Amino acid sequence: MAISSLLLRPCPPILPTKPTAENSHRCYTSNRLGLRCLTCKNSLRKETAETSPPIGATLFSDSEYKHSWLEELKRACPPEISSQQWENDDEKFRELVDKRGVDNVRMLILDSVNHAKAGHPGMALGMAEVGYFLYRHAMRYNPRNPKWFNRDRFVLSAGHGCLLQYVCLHLAGFQSVQIEDLKRLTKLGSRTPGHPENTITDGIEVTTGPLGQGVPNAVGLALAEAHLAARFNKPDVAIVDHRTYCIMGDGCAMEGISHEAASLAAHWKLNKLTLIYDDNHNTIDGSTDLAFSEDTSARFQALGWKTITVDLRNGELKLFENALLSAYGETEKPTFIRVKTTIGKLSKKEGTSKAHHGTFDEDDVKQMKQKVKWENHQPFHVIPMIYREMQIQADQGEKLEAMWTSKLHYYQTAYPEEAAEFNALLHGGLVPGWESSLPQWSITDPVDATRGYSEKCLNQLAKVLPGLIGGSADLASSNKAYLHDCGDFQRQNYKGRNIRYGVREHAMGGISNGIALHGGGLIPFAATFLIFSDYMKNSIRLSALSHAAVTYIMTHDSIGLGEDGPTHQPVEQLAGLRAIPRLLVFRPADGNETAGAYKVAVANRDVPSVIALSRQKLAANVEGTSSDAVERGGYIVSDNCGEELPEIILISTGSELCLCEASANLLRKEGRRVRVVSLVCWRLFDRQPQEYKEDVLPSGVSKRLSVEAGSPLGWREYVGEKGSVLGVEEFGASGAYLDAFKKYGFTEENVTRIAKSLLSC
Amino acid sequence: MAISSLLLRPCPPILPTKPTAENSHRCYTSNRLGLRCLTCKNSLRKETAETSPPIGATLFSDSEYKHSWLEELKRACPPEISSQQWENDDEKFRELVDKRGVDNVRMLILDSVNHAKAGHPGMALGMAEVGYFLYRHAMRYNPRNPKWFNRDRFVLSAGHGCLLQYVCLHLAGFQSVQIEDLKRLTKLGSRTPGHPENTITDGIEVTTGPLGQGVPNAVGLALAEAHLAARFNKPDVAIVDHRTYCIMGDGCAMEGISHEAASLAAHWKLNKLTLIYDDNHNTIDGSTDLAFSEDTSARFQALGWKTITVDLRNGELKLFENALLSAYGETEKPTFIRVKTTIGKLSKKEGTSKAHHGTFDEDDVKQMKQKVKWENHQPFHVIPMIYREMQIQADQGEKLEAMWTSKLHYYQTAYPEEAAEFNALLHGGLVPGWESSLPQWSITDPVDATRGYSEKCLNQLAKVLPGLIGGSADLASSNKAYLHDCGDFQRQNYKGRNIRYGVREHAMGGISNGIALHGGGLIPFAATFLIFSDYMKNSIRLSALSHAAVTYIMTHDSIGLGEDGPTHQPVEQLAGLRAIPRLLVFRPADGNETAGAYKVAVANRDVPSVIALSRQKLAANVEGTSSDAVERGGYIVSDNCGEELPEIILISTGSELCLCEASANLLRKEGRRVRVVSLVCWRLFDRQPQEYKEDVLPSGVSKRLSVEAGSPLGWREYVGEKGSVLGVEEFGASGAYLDAFKKYGFTEENVTRIAKSLLSC
Repeated sequence: MAISSLLLRPCPPILPTKPTAENSHRCYTSNRLGLRCLTCKNSLRKETAETSPPIGATLFSDSEYKHSWLEELKRACPPEISSQQWENDDEKFRELVDKRGVDNVRMLILDSVNHAKAGHPGMALGMAEVGYFLYRHAMRYNPRNPKWFNRDRFVLSAGHGCLLQYVCLHLAGFQSVQIEDLKRLTKLGSRTPGHPENTITDGIEVTTGPLGQGVPNAVGLALAEAHLAARFNKPDVAIVDHRTYCIMGDGCAMEGISHEAASLAAHWKLNKLTLIYDDNHNTIDGSTDLAFSEDTSARFQALGWKTITVDLRNGELKLFENALLSAYGETEKPTFIRVKTTIGKLSKKEGTSKAHHGTFDEDDVKQMKQKVKWENHQPFHVIPMIYREMQIQADQGEKLEAMWTSKLHYYQTAYPEEAAEFNALLHGGLVPGWESSLPQWSITDPVDATRGYSEKCLNQLAKVLPGLIGGSADLASSNKAYLHDCGDFQRQNYKGRNIRYGVREHAMGGISNGIALHGGGLIPFAATFLIFSDYMKNSIRLSALSHAAVTYIMTHDSIGLGEDGPTHQPVEQLAGLRAIPRLLVFRPADGNETAGAYKVAVANRDVPSVIALSRQKLAANVEGTSSDAVERGGYIVSDNCGEELPEIILISTGSELCLCEASANLLRKEGRRVRVVSLVCWRLFDRQPQEYKEDVLPSGVSKRLSVEAGSPLGWREYVGEKGSVLGVEEFGASGAYLDAFKKYGFTEENVTRIAKSLLSC
Repeated sequence: MAISSLLLRPCPPILPTKPTAENSHRCYTSNRLGLRCLTCKNSLRKETAETSPPIGATLFSDSEYKHSWLEELKRACPPEISSQQWENDDEKFRELVDKRGVDNVRMLILDSVNHAKAGHPGMALGMAEVGYFLYRHAMRYNPRNPKWFNRDRFVLSAGHGCLLQYVCLHLAGFQSVQIEDLKRLTKLGSRTPGHPENTITDGIEVTTGPLGQGVPNAVGLALAEAHLAARFNKPDVAIVDHRTYCIMGDGCAMEGISHEAASLAAHWKLNKLTLIYDDNHNTIDGSTDLAFSEDTSARFQALGWKTITVDLRNGELKLFENALLSAYGETEKPTFIRVKTTIGKLSKKEGTSKAHHGTFDEDDVKQMKQKVKWENHQPFHVIPMIYREMQIQADQGEKLEAMWTSKLHYYQTAYPEEAAEFNALLHGGLVPGWESSLPQWSITDPVDATRGYSEKCLNQLAKVLPGLIGGSADLASSNKAYLHDCGDFQRQNYKGRNIRYGVREHAMGGISNGIALHGGGLIPFAATFLIFSDYMKNSIRLSALSHAAVTYIMTHDSIGLGEDGPTHQPVEQLAGLRAIPRLLVFRPADGNETAGAYKVAVANRDVPSVIALSRQKLAANVEGTSSDAVERGGYIVSDNCGEELPEIILISTGSELCLCEASANLLRKEGRRVRVVSLVCWRLFDRQPQEYKEDVLPSGVSKRLSVEAGSPLGWREYVGEKGSVLGVEEFGASGAYLDAFKKYGFTEENVTRIAKSLLSC
């Protein structure tokens, strides 16, 4: 029987995403030897046996396989369980096979940590049941194509437990994690770094480690699925349909970012999101009693989650399976499964924070191995049948992918228009010619704030980029970051492309990372005031580290925002953001530069960007700015020097560029050779060839003045030893924009004064 | 009857902090004309009348006063309430007086916003009842001494509603807010900036505006009270005994930082903390339905709070009074009062987000005034009797302070030893000679990580500084930031000086700010990994802005932390922190510099500091470092140049200084004149006189190399145009410390190589 027809048979789903006539048949799993539908008991083993073996797996005939397990279980089973109890009891047999799988996961964790002499075994050992069950029975993935679009997404928010995931990826047949990789845990250049990194290891969806971040990542992945499903699925065919799983620990549960994200997930009723809370009652400093007394389940209920508690301390996988089944049946709420576990399970340190990280002593290792009858195995031993066990799930994934591909073909025939758009998204979402949609402005257009120009760019892009989606942390109107006619993403309208984050900047960053890394071609933007980049700094950093191409739209970008005062006036934020590796920070000076910034930001699909924009209307339009020049980071805006070198160069960004231009014009009238340079993106300028940089900022010109209403930090690089930096070295002050600008010297008069004093040196 | 004897009469308290025989009599309030105990009904009016008049108040004889109110109420009372209903009904009369007080608060808000053409009237108008009631009936304060130690603390976490507080401060008689100040709302240099700033306006306890921050500030204030009360109160005399109030809005309720802080407040059972939630169902972008569906009260219950809901939309103050009474009676939990209000109350924009900020049009203003019979008053009108009303509360505060002072005298006699310590705290907590407790190290001492040196400094300081208190975000052991033998701050031991924050960096920052600004002489420290400064960036900024002298102990300060990889390896954090105005960022190179950093950090009681410390053991001790030199920010560590200029200067910080020293020694052996400079705190060095800076970094030496395992941003300032910067321009990598250091060039060999290439130019 071909898999496709198998999958169309009308047996009820066991681990369904959401039971529908259409998808009920890819929900089978195997809870017995081989591949078999849990409910209708139809054996699917034949198909499994036909597939290629997993890496490291030993091939067995069916009879050999069963026989080998019998031998293994007789050897390893606790003496109180006689073999008669399970030899002819399929359920019990399956239970013991799974138990042995969990043992194997634990032993690989133990061996890896002790071999590397580093790592965090505590959570990994405690959650072995969960990891094993997810990869063996629950999740849909294809190790031969880890990027298969419709795979389930898994996020390990408690990233320090990555060894659990590495071991599961290895057993499941992901090429990315071989035994040799486990041996190189945390070592330089390994594929098994100390925290999971999506850019290094196939099978890792997002980079985690900073606690709490994985929760919004998972919410973003689930949001992306809900959005794409709403847009593209049809009554007769669902081409977007996967679940999202996230494991979080006590630390994640304490971090505010997880509270924010959890509140939004419930607001959006993302019912295909399952959050698994490793409730092991320990953090680094000791028992959670030290600082954590809340009723976490009740809190999640108050937020609007379905909550389930499962005690896995005795290894009863059935309890966890039931919890997942219950989650799958939920249609209105995301599900929070609180799993009680024992940190450092098996070790003499178990149940204490001492097991959180570090190795085990020889005696402990010996006892741990004895407890699971492992003492005669070499380190990194894998029971050969375990590879085959995991292969069953992997094979299913491969078949699911094949089925999904068939569906996609059908979809292309039945819905060619939608299919074209979907296809564009699968290829990154950049429709040819999208750049030409960006508006252009001329010197005679009315002057606006750069946030005003941004609004026009964003809305033009929304028309041509099907994947553009995003929102603001309750400042859509102030940030001018609302996509008109695109609707709000809400439960009743998952098609909506405006995301209402509420006042939750940090979750917004983490969710945007999830959307960007979903792989569905979505192009997320996230908007707030520049000052509140402070609230989401770590998420922005993770965008850059994990190659999540989020566009951060940050308005009210200087003391020029005026009356709201120093709590809202960014000063040091640009410097702090510029220091983040890989991140592109733009501070455009007008409409054309704003369009140019968007062009670079959108075009680079593995680099995040910050576009800093003014609240206040610019003082004037500037002739000579350029959209195309933005990609070089810095360029000459105006110059009256002809073949000669300028006497002085005024370098600026954003809303201060027009001050420089005005001042330059004044000096030029006095006969001075003055150049004005826009340094709209430092990093891009730094990457230009030396000749270009020399052309723009000739080393022969030592009289340079930088003008930017922010921290002076870093400007010396561009003005040189003899240049001057006009910046803001204090916190700003409440006051009208022009008063605040005057107080800190950002007037044409003061710029001219400093320039003249440089010229007279 | 003297106030002191009045206060000793055995009538039960009405608005007690916590009823005890000792304090039951300062709990009186006035809910009728004049001052009267709500419960025993004894009039206290005589005492009140004898006090000096409030600023702007008109003096009345008692009969005039009552008469004037009768006239006012007859004029302003809604026609449906006949004067017979209240003329002889004290309760009703008081209710109407209070109602008129609330009207007056609203009208001042309206006038101020319209006069300034800026500000946020929405929340201020909606919460007028709460503001009025707190300042008129509930809070204990003395406008003539706003810093009175035992005052109740009030935090406006929804800082944009500051106009409500400004108006209340004005009516209550605080010199800091005159009518002229209200007229200058948000204007440059005014005492009424766009968000409340404690360094500008007496009566403002903490600087708020960034949403959510006020909640941990309030938790910190309540923690400080609980700690000091536990240490100093005696069975017969309580010298530390005040409540803490905090108003938060929907935005604060969404921000993760408030979730973190609320979880801790309940864990610590800070029952004297009252959090008032302005549930007006609106944020900037619209109805909270857009992004906020949770059951906030249930969430707070799950965290461990007592919760009360009050509907104030009809102005029934009695409901709020009852809620406060209930909060005062709670001995085990902090109290969360959810107050339903109408944003922009009175305006035609009321109940909508349009009322959040901005002015009102002429027609609206007219109607608003008509609604409260205010149409015949000039702008900024204050009913004269309102000043006198508020004066009653202010007079009480003055008397309470006098009583507290008497108590303190008694305490000094009865408990001289504790009194001496308490007195030291009241004067800032710096006991003479405290600096000498700091350890010193010699070149022959075993080499440690700088976090190890920090541990010793911190523990020595704990012995001599009675106010040193702080903790870590679940990394006490890794940060080595635990005060041995000082106990944990927990409900059963408020005396403990180690605060267990759990994994809640952002709340830790905000709570530390509250502790620092409590005024009880506490010297807070807050510890985490340097990378997680990202999670608390805005709180650190607010420390600097609000002069909260928190010492941030940030370990694992570079890629040198090793195996945990790039998610945990700070790269750009030092640059970002150095850009924050006022903040002192230290990166000490050994034990002596660590001691020096603590010395400066502790000595400066209005400036926060970050001390960045290594996880890894230093490569070697360095001869020539100095504790005393740290206060100059940078100094010469070693030099073989005699009277000549060096050929090259190696500039470094922290764990890389010993690399430079080793490299310098090698170059010196080859006959080179090499200077090594430690630039332990850029800001302090920048503040030195030009000659000193020239002595350390002579402009004649252009060959300079900076070596710091972090972002190069900013180093150009010190190495000059021709110098080289060895920094980290990418994210780090998982790997053993020495492997990671080698990968990025932080080896003696590479430093020497670069130095030589500079020398050969």
